[in-house]
Amino acid sequence: MKIITDSLESQLKQVSQRTAGLTDPKIEASVREIIENVQAKGDQALRDYEKKFDNVDLTSFRLSDQELTDALDSIDDDLREALEVAKANITSFHKKEIEYGFVDSEKPGVMRGQKVISIATVGLYVPGGTAAYPSSVLMNAIPAKLAGVNRLVMVTPPQKDGINKAVLAAAKLAGVDDVFQIGGAQAIAALAYGTESVPRVDKIFGPGNVFVATAKKMVFGQVAIDMIAGPSEIGVIADDSAKPAQVAADLLSQAEHDKRSRPILVTDSINLANAVSDEVEKQLQTLPREEIARAAVEDQGFIAVLPKVDDMFTLMNAIAPEHLEIQLPNPTDYLAQIKNAGSVFLGRYASEPLGDYVAGPNHILPTSGTARFSSPVGVYDFVKRTQFIQYTSDALAKEADYITKLARVEGLEGHARAIEAREEK
Amino acid sequence: MKIITDSLESQLKQVSQRTAGLTDPKIEASVREIIENVQAKGDQALRDYEKKFDNVDLTSFRLSDQELTDALDSIDDDLREALEVAKANITSFHKKEIEYGFVDSEKPGVMRGQKVISIATVGLYVPGGTAAYPSSVLMNAIPAKLAGVNRLVMVTPPQKDGINKAVLAAAKLAGVDDVFQIGGAQAIAALAYGTESVPRVDKIFGPGNVFVATAKKMVFGQVAIDMIAGPSEIGVIADDSAKPAQVAADLLSQAEHDKRSRPILVTDSINLANAVSDEVEKQLQTLPREEIARAAVEDQGFIAVLPKVDDMFTLMNAIAPEHLEIQLPNPTDYLAQIKNAGSVFLGRYASEPLGDYVAGPNHILPTSGTARFSSPVGVYDFVKRTQFIQYTSDALAKEADYITKLARVEGLEGHARAIEAREEK
Repeated sequence: MKIITDSLESQLKQVSQRTAGLTDPKIEASVREIIENVQAKGDQALRDYEKKFDNVDLTSFRLSDQELTDALDSIDDDLREALEVAKANITSFHKKEIEYGFVDSEKPGVMRGQKVISIATVGLYVPGGTAAYPSSVLMNAIPAKLAGVNRLVMVTPPQKDGINKAVLAAAKLAGVDDVFQIGGAQAIAALAYGTESVPRVDKIFGPGNVFVATAKKMVFGQVAIDMIAGPSEIGVIADDSAKPAQVAADLLSQAEHDKRSRPILVTDSINLANAVSDEVEKQLQTLPREEIARAAVEDQGFIAVLPKVDDMFTLMNAIAPEHLEIQLPNPTDYLAQIKNAGSVFLGRYASEPLGDYVAGPNHILPTSGTARFSSPVGVYDFVKRTQFIQYTSDALAKEADYITKLARVEGLEGHARAIEAREEK
Repeated sequence: MKIITDSLESQLKQVSQRTAGLTDPKIEASVREIIENVQAKGDQALRDYEKKFDNVDLTSFRLSDQELTDALDSIDDDLREALEVAKANITSFHKKEIEYGFVDSEKPGVMRGQKVISIATVGLYVPGGTAAYPSSVLMNAIPAKLAGVNRLVMVTPPQKDGINKAVLAAAKLAGVDDVFQIGGAQAIAALAYGTESVPRVDKIFGPGNVFVATAKKMVFGQVAIDMIAGPSEIGVIADDSAKPAQVAADLLSQAEHDKRSRPILVTDSINLANAVSDEVEKQLQTLPREEIARAAVEDQGFIAVLPKVDDMFTLMNAIAPEHLEIQLPNPTDYLAQIKNAGSVFLGRYASEPLGDYVAGPNHILPTSGTARFSSPVGVYDFVKRTQFIQYTSDALAKEADYITKLARVEGLEGHARAIEAREEK
């Protein structure tokens, strides 16, 4: 791996130059056509696109409940047990994210409050092929159901050999209400606007290829979307006490996802830097997904050597990695220094894949530096808030002059008159 | 106003046909050019665009702290007092929205938790001209500062006679850190990517014209954005106990904002429907912004008559209005039936402008039916979450088989090996 020993300032400058590009106008034009066709022709457009893109003739899109039950019955006992343990841990963690409203009555005659209400209908996009991950179905569906979502609709591209059984089993376990065999931009359009078969949803979750991501961005406003997911990152902060083979294995666990994944080690030890670099090379040679992981390591990855602990955290906060491992003695001591990271793994035994599968925190995390402003998927993503107020005549009279003053300063005479229409004569 | 007496089914169908359009490709092409120019040329591009669009020659963009202090000193005492009262009420309400993380240690050797961290740098767009509202500055800036935002950067288009003094006074009162005189898509680009003078922010808030809205949508992903704001709506549910003059005045208070505003009354009383319609016409005739309000009333507004109370709420939940007034006896009894609304005004004295100015709940609300999935602006919009886990060796050993099973089912051998690298030999 590339080892960088530049100054902090120089490294921060490099990080700040990484920006997300705008959407490609050519892809956007194709996606616009697909969206407009689905809006105009509904199910027929979906059938045409699934024929064209996925080479399947569909008469209906929705899987029966029996197909989901059969999938759950078909998986082996070890997988079933692993999914059940994951479900239990994800549930116990996400229950703590449930939010409540409040009511106040601090001033005479005034009641004010806020209600937290679940979003009624949610769509979940699950990619096809090798990126169909049962664990990701649990990570989206469990918080949705804890939030109280009424109807959770999953869409996933049709496959020649049928939809991945483990994915369907996870959907059944997590309480997904409908599964539709549709994919790509056409599936996003169907969820955003509804068709004869597919319900219009209020918010769309889940990752996909560039067509799916572009479609999500384009329908944003008509529906809410979770995020625009980019490539995965792992950042490790470690010193000489860390074991090079463990650090290397963790870096590779993210590198194997995608050629664009970015594995990063920040350390104060040139010895560890060299040892991890050697271990990465050694472990790469036996990794089944070597080609992908090697591209990620060589083109995207780097090891930064910085002598001061504070500087290591300054750099990592600027990177804002999706996953952040702290492999230092007494790792919890550093929690206060972490400002930007999706999920944090404290100490040697908190290996990143532990968080991917069973620990319970979410594994759908802000990527590509968006931890500056985004959160892991959580129960809070499946609710919205409504405020309310009630005033007595006397309470309104006390504040009426302030309201009419501000309204008139803003040139909104109708606002002032609405208040004056309440004056008791 | 148009009075509709169709069945609930027919009215619901009409509501469901209202969809948000996609962005206009021509506007998008112009905005793309502006964004790319600001990315490439920084301040020079901003100067060029401000010359071209706002016809001003700027040497520097940032207002001095003294200019803000002078603005606050320049406003009259009544306005100052109204702004102070509004600030106190907005603060006391929004303090209740502050969120905290958690730590659990339910299982031996396992610590899991979540930290709530403020977003470091936030941009706030404030439109120029007559839509420069000091109240909206308070509504964005107060929750931002309660959340702990480090640097709150306001941008607003330069004006020939200088920026609106009341807006600057509100910015000073609410703790805005920087005010830059830039507007339009170029201001959004500057906030998203940074220039020599303007800091790159993490999230952009505030409404604007179609160029601003398009730019916000295009930079979404590089930064977070609050929402795509559409025209204002007010929905009133009322029966014969309501006073027609008050209902009409409230409908007009939203109608005067914009020709595209939508005033809606849903009632079980044809008498009230007729009386409100007459009152609206009467009040329109003396309203300074009659032209705007009349267009909104005639082109966008309607009165729906539905005999059953439940049906009135079903229709209103489908509309998901930005503002919802309940002018029925015992209005609080209906709180449970409200599923989709930005802010709710209970009873005769909770006139909508009370919420716009001084009651304390936010007035920046989800418009155009987006209350299905969005919340009022709140403290929660200025924070993000980070999760963390710590496991002992024993705790990891208990769950290791589940992790390696799931990793291998997903074809991610590197993930399984990272866990196996922790096995004690």
